[in-house]
Amino acid sequence: MGKGKTNPTMKDVAREAGVAVGTVSKVINGLPVGKEYRIRVEEAIRKLNYRVNIYAQGLRSSRTNVIQVVVPNLINPFFASLVNFINKELAQRNYKMMLCTTDADPELEQFYVSMSEQQKVDGIICLSYNPMLEVPENIPMISVDRYFGTNIPCVSSDNYGGGHLAAEKLVENGCKNLAFLRTGTKLVNETNKRKAGFASACEELGVPYTLKMIDDGTPYSAFEDFLREHLHGGALDFDGIFCATDSLAYQIIHTLRGMGVRVPEDVQIIGYDGVRYFGDMDLYCSTIVQPLEEMSATCVHLVLDDQLGKAPSLICLPVSYAYGGTTKA
Amino acid sequence: MGKGKTNPTMKDVAREAGVAVGTVSKVINGLPVGKEYRIRVEEAIRKLNYRVNIYAQGLRSSRTNVIQVVVPNLINPFFASLVNFINKELAQRNYKMMLCTTDADPELEQFYVSMSEQQKVDGIICLSYNPMLEVPENIPMISVDRYFGTNIPCVSSDNYGGGHLAAEKLVENGCKNLAFLRTGTKLVNETNKRKAGFASACEELGVPYTLKMIDDGTPYSAFEDFLREHLHGGALDFDGIFCATDSLAYQIIHTLRGMGVRVPEDVQIIGYDGVRYFGDMDLYCSTIVQPLEEMSATCVHLVLDDQLGKAPSLICLPVSYAYGGTTKA
Repeated sequence: MGKGKTNPTMKDVAREAGVAVGTVSKVINGLPVGKEYRIRVEEAIRKLNYRVNIYAQGLRSSRTNVIQVVVPNLINPFFASLVNFINKELAQRNYKMMLCTTDADPELEQFYVSMSEQQKVDGIICLSYNPMLEVPENIPMISVDRYFGTNIPCVSSDNYGGGHLAAEKLVENGCKNLAFLRTGTKLVNETNKRKAGFASACEELGVPYTLKMIDDGTPYSAFEDFLREHLHGGALDFDGIFCATDSLAYQIIHTLRGMGVRVPEDVQIIGYDGVRYFGDMDLYCSTIVQPLEEMSATCVHLVLDDQLGKAPSLICLPVSYAYGGTTKA
Repeated sequence: MGKGKTNPTMKDVAREAGVAVGTVSKVINGLPVGKEYRIRVEEAIRKLNYRVNIYAQGLRSSRTNVIQVVVPNLINPFFASLVNFINKELAQRNYKMMLCTTDADPELEQFYVSMSEQQKVDGIICLSYNPMLEVPENIPMISVDRYFGTNIPCVSSDNYGGGHLAAEKLVENGCKNLAFLRTGTKLVNETNKRKAGFASACEELGVPYTLKMIDDGTPYSAFEDFLREHLHGGALDFDGIFCATDSLAYQIIHTLRGMGVRVPEDVQIIGYDGVRYFGDMDLYCSTIVQPLEEMSATCVHLVLDDQLGKAPSLICLPVSYAYGGTTKA
């Protein structure tokens, strides 16, 4: 075969891999086969330079092996890492990713999701905070972090557990007066559970807490005003703050240091996400880490599952706490 | 039309937009039309929820309106932002992106690039540092940052000019003894020109300089050893350092501060890339900024250009200097 002009067939791949043609077909169509078989087939595909014609394939089997992924952008490192891991998961199953970034524009999100039906993609993985999004009826869809209803499985980190864990860690580290800060939509979404878990833990532990939430669009200075109101003679009322995202934590730390408040000596800060400098270096702050690889794998597993209708409507994956220098431990 | 089940036709879109059917067709096929017409057609497409069947379209016109984008990963914020802007550029022309991440695995890069020919994508935009990559003959390909030969246009920032600018800025800020640090492949690639531009400026300005380059795979401690060798009684031999990337600059700053050397008081540091915290907040360091949006637009413009054969083999886009706190200005 080698570099000859003849395109190898599925039979050639099966011979090279030492498996049945049906196994090759399964791998190509993303159906489950034993991991060892899958690896052998994938190696044979690469070695022989076997090429699938997705158009012929699309018309033949009505499967395209393409999953559409809809996210706001890839500038935010959390979204970028999520797409990175989804892409790897899809590739391992010989699926391809059609990527659509929306800048969280509801019209554009609707356009891409609606388009998917006629585009013959095999499924959609969508991260949208648009509550009005009309979801397609004839195509499997998985939502990340936003619950659209029982017919659309939602994959998220355990936001409630994460908020709970943040409060526990702050109290464990000696904090006596806590605050929770969040910016974002008022609409019901998974991320709001971070607040609920936090408040619940504070109540269980008998620790006073304050919530400060501002809507998208409100300027950041609202947080500066809030912190200034709680600053008395250079000392802040709070000695522990949980921020709903690492990026908010980063800004708050900057603001506090500008006010002469030391982190973590005077105030300990915990963020949420587990984002790292340059994607893979140090953490920005002490944080509740979302299990991005597991979340991505779950999204891909579900969207390709023929039994999707029987999937749970919400799958929350476990988070963990990581020390990142903005707490005492 | 509205939410009825009848799929609107191209004629309906043309009527809604008040343009000729040919104009709608051009927009759908990514051919150039006046911006105002394009916007009107896109609005009509969204309003009517018009859906293109890419398979029928692919078989009819041998165009699929899909561009394959091959990058190492989306963990690195530079790659993630590049893909983000390419995606937006493609969407504006009604093109879709098939995303392939490779972890810089040469075999996987080759697999994706070879696959593209039979996948009937309309073109490839590829970021690979694999010098052995065999490029397809029958499909337009644009390379980012790596020169593959005169038949594959390469789009990069002006790496030579950027290295030159870094040296100039350090000298302008009072530095008298410079160093250049780089990690990466020895192979010829565009990024190596950062060193050449830097060295050239140092010679023109009559400023002594030292180069320290380590190969991929050499541990970072090689840089620590290098800095320690040049540390005498708490003072570093250099008062200005140009690092080939922002991420290296970030590590070097950390190492220097650990040695008690102050940045920028004792040593001024300039990186390269223009990466920002969380993608869009502060710069990590003073840096030479790559014009990512312009580079992305150029890649898309070229890969869709019917006259690609006449394109220049290398297009270097202008960089700029940005102060990020690790220099005196």
